[in-house]
Amino acid sequence: MSTLTQEKLAQAVELVQASDADVWLTFVRETAATTDPVLPLIHEGGFTWHCALLVARDGRKVAIVGNYDADPLEQSGDWHQVLTYVQGIRETLLSALEELIHSEVERPRIAVNFSESDPLADGLTHGMLRTLSGYLAGSRFQDSLCSAEGIVMSLRGRKSPTELARIRAAVAETGRLFECVQREVRIGHSELEVYQLLQAEIDRCGMGYAWDRSLCPIVNTGPDSAEGHSQPSADLRIAPGHLFHIDLGVTLDGYSSDLQRCWYVPQPGETAPPEVLLRALAAVNGAISAAAAALRPGVPGWEVDRAAREYIIAAGYPEYLHAVGHQVGRIAHDGGGVLAPRWERYGRTPELPVEADQVYTLELGVEVKGCGYLSLEEMVRVTESGVEWLSQRQLELPLLG
Amino acid sequence: MSTLTQEKLAQAVELVQASDADVWLTFVRETAATTDPVLPLIHEGGFTWHCALLVARDGRKVAIVGNYDADPLEQSGDWHQVLTYVQGIRETLLSALEELIHSEVERPRIAVNFSESDPLADGLTHGMLRTLSGYLAGSRFQDSLCSAEGIVMSLRGRKSPTELARIRAAVAETGRLFECVQREVRIGHSELEVYQLLQAEIDRCGMGYAWDRSLCPIVNTGPDSAEGHSQPSADLRIAPGHLFHIDLGVTLDGYSSDLQRCWYVPQPGETAPPEVLLRALAAVNGAISAAAAALRPGVPGWEVDRAAREYIIAAGYPEYLHAVGHQVGRIAHDGGGVLAPRWERYGRTPELPVEADQVYTLELGVEVKGCGYLSLEEMVRVTESGVEWLSQRQLELPLLG
Repeated sequence: MSTLTQEKLAQAVELVQASDADVWLTFVRETAATTDPVLPLIHEGGFTWHCALLVARDGRKVAIVGNYDADPLEQSGDWHQVLTYVQGIRETLLSALEELIHSEVERPRIAVNFSESDPLADGLTHGMLRTLSGYLAGSRFQDSLCSAEGIVMSLRGRKSPTELARIRAAVAETGRLFECVQREVRIGHSELEVYQLLQAEIDRCGMGYAWDRSLCPIVNTGPDSAEGHSQPSADLRIAPGHLFHIDLGVTLDGYSSDLQRCWYVPQPGETAPPEVLLRALAAVNGAISAAAAALRPGVPGWEVDRAAREYIIAAGYPEYLHAVGHQVGRIAHDGGGVLAPRWERYGRTPELPVEADQVYTLELGVEVKGCGYLSLEEMVRVTESGVEWLSQRQLELPLLG
Repeated sequence: MSTLTQEKLAQAVELVQASDADVWLTFVRETAATTDPVLPLIHEGGFTWHCALLVARDGRKVAIVGNYDADPLEQSGDWHQVLTYVQGIRETLLSALEELIHSEVERPRIAVNFSESDPLADGLTHGMLRTLSGYLAGSRFQDSLCSAEGIVMSLRGRKSPTELARIRAAVAETGRLFECVQREVRIGHSELEVYQLLQAEIDRCGMGYAWDRSLCPIVNTGPDSAEGHSQPSADLRIAPGHLFHIDLGVTLDGYSSDLQRCWYVPQPGETAPPEVLLRALAAVNGAISAAAAALRPGVPGWEVDRAAREYIIAAGYPEYLHAVGHQVGRIAHDGGGVLAPRWERYGRTPELPVEADQVYTLELGVEVKGCGYLSLEEMVRVTESGVEWLSQRQLELPLLG
């Protein structure tokens, strides 16, 4: 029995009890191809054939899998029952639902993993939803499917002790990688060379990437580099007068970091960054502090974003074109509530109230004309009354080269 | 421009033209969390915000992405247009569809990636389908969404020259790993030790796993080992009289192998496997040959399975409880048509006609009482008239230990 799945399944039972669902159903197949992002929280490993993982209001946990998939579930010790089938899952699934949802329940509700707002609570594919609807047609569960968005968002968001320990370890390793940049990166290196240097070190240590490997880390040097999720350039080379910026997230034991750091590459004779950069640094840090001050349980995410957005505008800079923070967990963008403005692309995620033990980034940047992109990203855990900083804040602008 | 995405997008245009769709739309977001398995065929890398990749009947290819995601798409050179948005994708998507689908088309059809039968053609989540339906509501595309199953199945199935070369390389590396087993594995090693030995070698070479790492390779020694997708045991150790069996798939440059091999561990004094094992080996190989003889373009998969199933039953063995073959590509179970019996869990995939340039496994096994699980798995490419063997067939049962 893994401590992690044990902790998360205990949370899941509580969340189902606090919801209006009778059963929470995770329905997957061929997970090597299309996995539900919630799966690794409740089971270590994958499945080939249709698999139904059920958590009921009364705490019973039942797994239904194809005949060759049963062994890891049984070994885990996490499930009260592991049922198997050979030709098809339909009948076994229907009788398990009959068993788990008392026949006197008038309007049974089966929560499944779809969500328009939260990609991480949206693991059920449309084809699988259709299959499931077909199975339930004509049974008393015909109209029972509903969204498990609330259950999955909280399950993913509220980090358990094991999850927090792993995130702390990923943050520490990222700090070590930034030290490696400070030590080894020099004037004349291209963005691509720094990217390759960091990837080589990440691979050597057996770590993974908190987002798509081809875009991790993001490396920007100087004013001509493309801001955003861009690929490192082989032509842009670190030169005096540049702002040098890295956005990096690593994964260790399945949990991630996501941090941004900046350096200044001095001109001959310079011993400190120019005033214009120090002003930008102070503005960015002030906005991050404003967001942190607004961040506590119960507050909707957009209020936290607004605090930072108003700060940076008042400081005379243009507003950033993204959210001031997102949750971090198994991956960098870990879903659930976002500290975002109420823009269409964020759906209803900016409205969600912050919960204790969620982990967020706080991040924003400004373009400094002629120098480059000054952007910082820190990580915090939400406590009962505020935040705990998981990263060591960058309050100064070190020299590089 | 990558040769691979170039080859696959050229195929995609042909497949859209041969379908009844006006546009094929791949609609994804936060692909680090929930990616559509078709995405790596048409773009290298991932996306953060809602992204729409459109291939039209007339061959135009248009990508719509959030402002920070545009750079890799533009760099790729694969898309005629890369459109960006800041707050939400809806308007840009609707006007691109207006542009791509002539206003005189009476019943416009937009094919999207859902499928009940094929997990690899089922990358659209239910939440994303709902979002998309919401965008189209009230427009002339309101009832236009249909399944892209046929397009995606053929796109994935018909291996391009670059894809075939990568699969051949993965098969060759797997052969090298089996040689490593022959050379290094000895009596007394546990299943877990062999699994760790192979994983260390796979990791050292920078290869990936063709299915879930925790279950790859599958290692079975002797009659007490759990057949199927089971975890290796630390207690079961290789001993004289055992059948020793490995099911292994590696991924190299994004393409996979999936092969099974068996060995016999001789008793003191034995210089060849006992007769009962040689009979089982011949039956298994005869069934694989029967499947290969039935496999050619146009034949439905179930007929291929039936050829092997009838052979093994006629040889006096129980039938295997799985399909005799599946396609292999980016992952071991690569979707599309399956060489399977017409069981519920296979949906309509056994009915699909085999196409040239698909790559299949041919695999089955029998339990040999007191010895273990004798199961083989080969890989073939479908040619215009039959098959080309991609793996070197295992026709003998080598001794191990």
